[in-house]
Amino acid sequence: MRIILDAMGSDNHPQPEIQAAVQAAKEFRCEILLVGDENQLADKLAQANPQNAAVRIVHAPEVFEMTTKLSGSMLRKVQNSMGVCMDLLKSGEGDVVVTAGNTGGAMAIGLARLGRLKGVKRPALSALFPVRGGHCVVLDLGANTDCRPEYLVQFAQMGSVYARQMLKIDRPRVGLVSNGEEAGKGNDLVKATYPLLQATGLNFIGNIEGKELFGGEADVAVADGFTGNVLLKASEAVAKFMTDILKEELMATARTKVGALLAKPAFDTLKRTLDPDEVGGVPLLGINGLVFVGHGRSDARALVNGMRWAKQAVEGDLLGALRAVMEGK
Amino acid sequence: MRIILDAMGSDNHPQPEIQAAVQAAKEFRCEILLVGDENQLADKLAQANPQNAAVRIVHAPEVFEMTTKLSGSMLRKVQNSMGVCMDLLKSGEGDVVVTAGNTGGAMAIGLARLGRLKGVKRPALSALFPVRGGHCVVLDLGANTDCRPEYLVQFAQMGSVYARQMLKIDRPRVGLVSNGEEAGKGNDLVKATYPLLQATGLNFIGNIEGKELFGGEADVAVADGFTGNVLLKASEAVAKFMTDILKEELMATARTKVGALLAKPAFDTLKRTLDPDEVGGVPLLGINGLVFVGHGRSDARALVNGMRWAKQAVEGDLLGALRAVMEGK
Repeated sequence: MRIILDAMGSDNHPQPEIQAAVQAAKEFRCEILLVGDENQLADKLAQANPQNAAVRIVHAPEVFEMTTKLSGSMLRKVQNSMGVCMDLLKSGEGDVVVTAGNTGGAMAIGLARLGRLKGVKRPALSALFPVRGGHCVVLDLGANTDCRPEYLVQFAQMGSVYARQMLKIDRPRVGLVSNGEEAGKGNDLVKATYPLLQATGLNFIGNIEGKELFGGEADVAVADGFTGNVLLKASEAVAKFMTDILKEELMATARTKVGALLAKPAFDTLKRTLDPDEVGGVPLLGINGLVFVGHGRSDARALVNGMRWAKQAVEGDLLGALRAVMEGK
Repeated sequence: MRIILDAMGSDNHPQPEIQAAVQAAKEFRCEILLVGDENQLADKLAQANPQNAAVRIVHAPEVFEMTTKLSGSMLRKVQNSMGVCMDLLKSGEGDVVVTAGNTGGAMAIGLARLGRLKGVKRPALSALFPVRGGHCVVLDLGANTDCRPEYLVQFAQMGSVYARQMLKIDRPRVGLVSNGEEAGKGNDLVKATYPLLQATGLNFIGNIEGKELFGGEADVAVADGFTGNVLLKASEAVAKFMTDILKEELMATARTKVGALLAKPAFDTLKRTLDPDEVGGVPLLGINGLVFVGHGRSDARALVNGMRWAKQAVEGDLLGALRAVMEGK
């Protein structure tokens, strides 16, 4: 097993990546290919790796900001760290890519370099939302803002494979995000998708709203990328809004400060429940290779968690399972 | 001023409505028309109203569950409490309707009985979301699941009038809900709506995500009814999810229980911030009459708050202001 780690992905790169690579090499007993500007990496890695854990630098000659718009041919050629990561994956020198770089960029470069899995119409971004009793795979989160019903059906299929392989859920319950749980509710897209999902043989439980999603009633929640993205961003924003108010109010008086101190274990549980870094990495589902993208603000711990998750995906043959289901769809 | 209160709207009707009517009549010094089944209301009202505050029962001969599907002609004729409320408003016997009944039903019956304001293509449902530093008017919340760009422009116009008249914001900042704050982000609908909003003369601040919405950066947030509804339900569900975890964890040990007790003022502030009953009532924007719909689970306090808000809408001539802006649009 070799994990390919983008050394230039996170907001504070490359220090978190260097630390994470060394730690993961030790902990997982596998080789880490650390991809980035060798001049920036060599000395720092030597310092951080006195025991010589199996971390190897692969030089990426270009430094490219993901804010730059890349055209089609550039996406295939660019030799920044993300591009080199994808090439290493394609040539089989590594088994999985982990990056904390720009998600849209990873999708674009990954798609250009690795292509789609056979049968897949549109790759999707998915994340694990923390919900009652566990997690829910939500997709698409923004790779496809305008969708056709058949794309949503494929998201449901890929999300179900992901839930089965990675969350070990036998027959994942699939919900269709809508503006009402009753059948017949929805916009034109949802109404057209509903009967198609019923015909798939997936464990389709019907329309779901926020209540069912966060209540843990579905293992997979399907939406077009626009809706999924709005849902994701709103959920994160509400959580932050509530946490901010609570923090401020708890610090407001001596009494509440003492209360906060005593109640700390409860707040810690809440924080851990909502922490996206506990499970690091959003898979690019539907491209012909295993790529996981973490938050830009990932620290070393988040990156190690991301690599642990990526390693599980390799061991559980997530890609093979996706290929088996999607081929010919 | 006469407020028309649907006596049969809330989940626990008619007791909360009777209490609220008596309290509002006293507090606001205006007459309340309490609309419902006289047989169910007369004795209870007499008991609840020993001082004879100005509450008058208006009999609604039919009892109709809002779950029943109503056809076009039924919507115009039905003599359940909601239908009678709308007729009283139309004939000028009252100035504003307040109901805790089904929102979709109120919209359908209101539209059938009162019609649209001149120039309005599609009426919308809006709510005040609690955000940093105040509230944001979010619309549409589900009256129009599939929208054209020009509908969203009208939502922005109506939402701006609502924010100006009711929240006393001089030039309300209007945001377009999208999957990214940058211009150019969005699905086809958002991309088509963006330049139209720029051309309105409204205080359009561009695309917004959950972060900007809950960060209080917009006074009005515009979305199609499907997206707005998903946003609303997800926000409520995340708030409930977090509150539930926190409650359970705070009750988990003796230490956290004491902490919770001491920190109570902070939790109370959070609860008050998120409480939809503080401002009771969602206006049906764009129909030719003032109608406010509250939560089905409204208690007497929520209903009184709803009537207070409705009274302000009458006094501030919300309907006249909407008419002035929308005529000829």
